[in-house]
Amino acid sequence: MAKPSAISGFPEWLPAQRAVENVVLDTCREVFELHGFGSLETRAVETMADLLRKGEIDKEVYAVKRLHEPAGAITDPGSELALHFDLTVPFARYVVQHAGKLDFPYRRYQMQKVWRGERPQEGRYREFAQVDIDVVGLDTLPFHYDVEVPLVMAEVFERLNALGLPKISIRVNNRKVSEGFYRGVGFTEPTKVLGLVDKLDKIGAEKVGYLLRTQCEATDEMIAQALSLATISGADLSVIDEVLALGVEHPLLTEGLAELSAVLQAADGVLTADFSISRGLDYYTGTVFESTMRGFEHLGSVCSGGRYDSLASDGKTTYPGVGISMGLSRVLGPLFARGYTMNRSVPTCVLVALANDEERPAAEKVASSLRKRGISALVSPTAAKFGKQIKFADKRGIPFVWFITDDGHQVKDIRSGDQTSADRKKWTPPAEDLHPSIILQEN
Amino acid sequence: MAKPSAISGFPEWLPAQRAVENVVLDTCREVFELHGFGSLETRAVETMADLLRKGEIDKEVYAVKRLHEPAGAITDPGSELALHFDLTVPFARYVVQHAGKLDFPYRRYQMQKVWRGERPQEGRYREFAQVDIDVVGLDTLPFHYDVEVPLVMAEVFERLNALGLPKISIRVNNRKVSEGFYRGVGFTEPTKVLGLVDKLDKIGAEKVGYLLRTQCEATDEMIAQALSLATISGADLSVIDEVLALGVEHPLLTEGLAELSAVLQAADGVLTADFSISRGLDYYTGTVFESTMRGFEHLGSVCSGGRYDSLASDGKTTYPGVGISMGLSRVLGPLFARGYTMNRSVPTCVLVALANDEERPAAEKVASSLRKRGISALVSPTAAKFGKQIKFADKRGIPFVWFITDDGHQVKDIRSGDQTSADRKKWTPPAEDLHPSIILQEN
Repeated sequence: MAKPSAISGFPEWLPAQRAVENVVLDTCREVFELHGFGSLETRAVETMADLLRKGEIDKEVYAVKRLHEPAGAITDPGSELALHFDLTVPFARYVVQHAGKLDFPYRRYQMQKVWRGERPQEGRYREFAQVDIDVVGLDTLPFHYDVEVPLVMAEVFERLNALGLPKISIRVNNRKVSEGFYRGVGFTEPTKVLGLVDKLDKIGAEKVGYLLRTQCEATDEMIAQALSLATISGADLSVIDEVLALGVEHPLLTEGLAELSAVLQAADGVLTADFSISRGLDYYTGTVFESTMRGFEHLGSVCSGGRYDSLASDGKTTYPGVGISMGLSRVLGPLFARGYTMNRSVPTCVLVALANDEERPAAEKVASSLRKRGISALVSPTAAKFGKQIKFADKRGIPFVWFITDDGHQVKDIRSGDQTSADRKKWTPPAEDLHPSIILQEN
Repeated sequence: MAKPSAISGFPEWLPAQRAVENVVLDTCREVFELHGFGSLETRAVETMADLLRKGEIDKEVYAVKRLHEPAGAITDPGSELALHFDLTVPFARYVVQHAGKLDFPYRRYQMQKVWRGERPQEGRYREFAQVDIDVVGLDTLPFHYDVEVPLVMAEVFERLNALGLPKISIRVNNRKVSEGFYRGVGFTEPTKVLGLVDKLDKIGAEKVGYLLRTQCEATDEMIAQALSLATISGADLSVIDEVLALGVEHPLLTEGLAELSAVLQAADGVLTADFSISRGLDYYTGTVFESTMRGFEHLGSVCSGGRYDSLASDGKTTYPGVGISMGLSRVLGPLFARGYTMNRSVPTCVLVALANDEERPAAEKVASSLRKRGISALVSPTAAKFGKQIKFADKRGIPFVWFITDDGHQVKDIRSGDQTSADRKKWTPPAEDLHPSIILQEN
């Protein structure tokens, strides 16, 4: 085998990085299951026809084909296969396909790889992991799920922050607010307005104003109103008053502000209203979410979602839903590049040292006793000199080395050098040493 | 969306089945990590060149290509991509690629989907999950890992059996025993002999004898010896004596019997020696494993592996290894068809009932208190009649319903009908109800 090399856009983590990823996945899963979300995995492939329904992304799809597909085996282009590019389209398909066997409202989480043929860049990969939660109803879905879904994800982010990862904040808007407001101001194409206002950060107010004037027939007053809305943000209900103070009126705006105010009230400061969010106007029908990671704002949103009233439907029944999706690799790749890792590269907490090869069965007995009490333990690969065995542990970050001596058993904390006698059936490490923890290693 | 349908060979589990799969994955992971195996995930794709090195499976590979790959973008056929068909080839590639950043012996587990374009049948899929553990060394790998690896997997099987799944037994052989024995008997092509003896179960002793005579120039005595070896099996060291009693001598046989006897001795009855195992003669160089599931023997081996001394190499350095791989979907698919499932379809343990919609914040407070203590809880989707809310819980198998009444809080076990007063900060369910458990539901 010649030395193989990486494939651009298909990242692979080193063992300690993968362990960080598992901590994140475990945290997600624990929070989701406490909130009654069940696990789901869908197949990696969908039919090309199902994927290309969302036309704009056709360039990014990876087609999948048996290398020796018999000629003419595929007669129906609808049966051609491709890798899924997100978890929402497969989920919508799964719900419609298995509706008869699901209980609604159906709450699921899904943590899987997805594939897109995009040009790779920081935080953008061709193969990457996503973590989604969604609640879908049968024909109707109460509004309170719009409140619940972002709060569940916020609980995940709070726990991850406590584990040492940067803070991620979720911002919220409501499509009805934006659409109603722009209609109330006098715009006839609110989607177009939002697309232009979205460029505010990049090109500035003056240029956005110029574009609104030339492309949306905006007057000076309309431009001023549009720009005013985009600058309102905050975590408490005063943002609602700020919007009302602009004096614009429209039934959709009133409805949207009521929904948004319900979300903010229940969120109690955890979510921030931000009227510049323009995400997915074609797709979402009410509440929308975006999130940025502190210190990594240049990555853009790392966790987004919203309410969709008509994504999944079989023509007769509609399954309205609300969901939120975290770009896991998008978050982790930049964190790993910055030096986030584990304080050990292996799960092992104790290395049982070997004085000689005959001692292996006795050493295995020690390891087995520790494992029975949930302590990850490993017997030394060879009966090398003790100094070498300690180096073996040190290199991997294993904190404890166990010695079987003539005077009884001893365990050494190789970081402090402290060595004490120990009973294999009773000794336990300090709680913080039982499992590896996340650290930021200066590069 | 027209009603979508399943894609043959790409199974998807229902929520309760996926929960069973998660129990199996969690059990594997817990045991592996206690034994110091770290998690690894490799990218889903390899270059076609890397995959096709194992020539015989080229027909089964799924090629992957961007739908709108610019014409002429792929100039080097070595850069064409395909989905991996197992986890061993990607692992070998990963080890060689990242060797400088890995610590040897490197112990890893890997639980991922793999893809093969095979004809689907019971337990055989085109997309399926595998669970692998391997230990690889740098240039050398001590023999004791041949003993450790199957025992770690046997510990997983023991735990799964305790959780209600059928017993899986691991059988062991050693390539050196078979090859040495057949050479000692006088055969010059031991691989061919094993291929024929492998048919014993299917075509019977007489036909195997005929084939050995016509294809391997075997005498009656050679045939008798070959068939005798294949029928020896057992979990204790007496099998070694049985082989020796056949009176065949060869240095490779002696070496293989010594290795096998070390494995059996350490396994202490957990592994069964079986000299009819002919797995992977081209590939494995010593110890080999196969496993069958009780009641599902017709599926063949569901967990296999062995020692490979030269799979991973960059020309200068060789990374000898020993590993074992369980076909997870291969095990679960037939179990699900037989009726194995969960006693509830959701993780939820407690449904907090709603007397009216105004009560939702109070109900969320109860749910939040329970979650803080690790109890999965859900507030009722709507303030329907209590009977309807209890039915909601019953349909999903949620065992407890919580009521907020004027006289205080009450919790009802809806299976027994028992209702008692409860404190949201103290009440805990019986341990066996905290999480769902695996059951066999008669079809």
